[in-house]
Amino acid sequence: MPDVPLTDEPLILDRQPLPDGIGERLAAQLRFIAEADKLKTILRASPLAAADRRENDAEHSWHLALMVILLAEYADEPIDVGHAVRLVVIHDLVEIYAGDSPVFVPGAAADQVEREEAAAERLFGLLPADQAAEIRALWDEFEAGRTPEARFGKAMDRLEPMLLNWLDGGGTWQLPGATESTVRAREAGVVAGSTSLGSFTGQLVDEGLRRGWIRPDEA
Amino acid sequence: MPDVPLTDEPLILDRQPLPDGIGERLAAQLRFIAEADKLKTILRASPLAAADRRENDAEHSWHLALMVILLAEYADEPIDVGHAVRLVVIHDLVEIYAGDSPVFVPGAAADQVEREEAAAERLFGLLPADQAAEIRALWDEFEAGRTPEARFGKAMDRLEPMLLNWLDGGGTWQLPGATESTVRAREAGVVAGSTSLGSFTGQLVDEGLRRGWIRPDEA
Repeated sequence: MPDVPLTDEPLILDRQPLPDGIGERLAAQLRFIAEADKLKTILRASPLAAADRRENDAEHSWHLALMVILLAEYADEPIDVGHAVRLVVIHDLVEIYAGDSPVFVPGAAADQVEREEAAAERLFGLLPADQAAEIRALWDEFEAGRTPEARFGKAMDRLEPMLLNWLDGGGTWQLPGATESTVRAREAGVVAGSTSLGSFTGQLVDEGLRRGWIRPDEA
Repeated sequence: MPDVPLTDEPLILDRQPLPDGIGERLAAQLRFIAEADKLKTILRASPLAAADRRENDAEHSWHLALMVILLAEYADEPIDVGHAVRLVVIHDLVEIYAGDSPVFVPGAAADQVEREEAAAERLFGLLPADQAAEIRALWDEFEAGRTPEARFGKAMDRLEPMLLNWLDGGGTWQLPGATESTVRAREAGVVAGSTSLGSFTGQLVDEGLRRGWIRPDEA
């Protein structure tokens, strides 16, 4: 289930306003940066490999950034690594208000587009107008998979939970909505950014099926 | 106290080896990426603003990346934002084995350089040689504050916990080793990358002293 949207909660910075005399622009930027702390509380369905708990969105976003840096050589098209890292750092911010929409939980994606659109309006609207537009454009670029960097970032966003599922011996592959075809649909998102990493992901899925970690589709 | 170094623990990937037939280079990269999951378990002293718990290194690194993206305009020298983001994404990786060394805990920094050097050897050594050298060079650049990007990244690394302390009404400023002069020494790290953000940090510290959130030095 998606985490409860936080849209009615007060802003973090309103609980402890900054000292007087901070300029308006910096104050707006810090209001956003403080509010972003909430991303550390938005839980994903994926289990950590290093501890017995679920991953949160901030940790996940960091892990994608690291993967972009280390795996960029596998992108099908040349990418600007710094730009791709920026995309994955901001890609889940809207979940602060919209909540996570876990892919293998039936119904969890209902209204996802509307929820995230409303969240983007509220969250990015905290920033000075030029930066609100800049971050919004990055988010749109990522969501639409419009550039090589966005396609590679999305490939990492698909690959990372696959790897966590593998390390867990099942993970979210055990959820009710996960069967071979829904898992293969996620694999396709890796392929779209990297043929070679997509091929590796295919091996993980093949072996996951063989071990009973992924259910075959019903006949 | 520093978290217990994990140097004797097995590698995460050794618990659940990848399917056969993955090439050696990709296997090494994924071994590192899986091991990096442990950064999500390394707790810092800083309290989150959005929840009643301490921050972990992966969340912290993500927050710095976001701050670099949004506050780059305040850098004293022009910076390559993508490069600065890369630096902060990798800057705490060695703490996977070396543990966090909280600045306001007396004695916590003992052997920090040696611990982190040993951790870097072991951790970066998991990567293919060319990437081990590349990530090591990024880490050295950050640690030494050798470039404008490193100085700005370090400024964010000082500013973020200051902001969390402010939002907490004290935070790590309440630890035994924190008094005005040790807090001002952290402020200096912000000034070194950004005069204007350093000036803002100075206002936070002034007001923190006034409110009794930071102890004055003993006379």
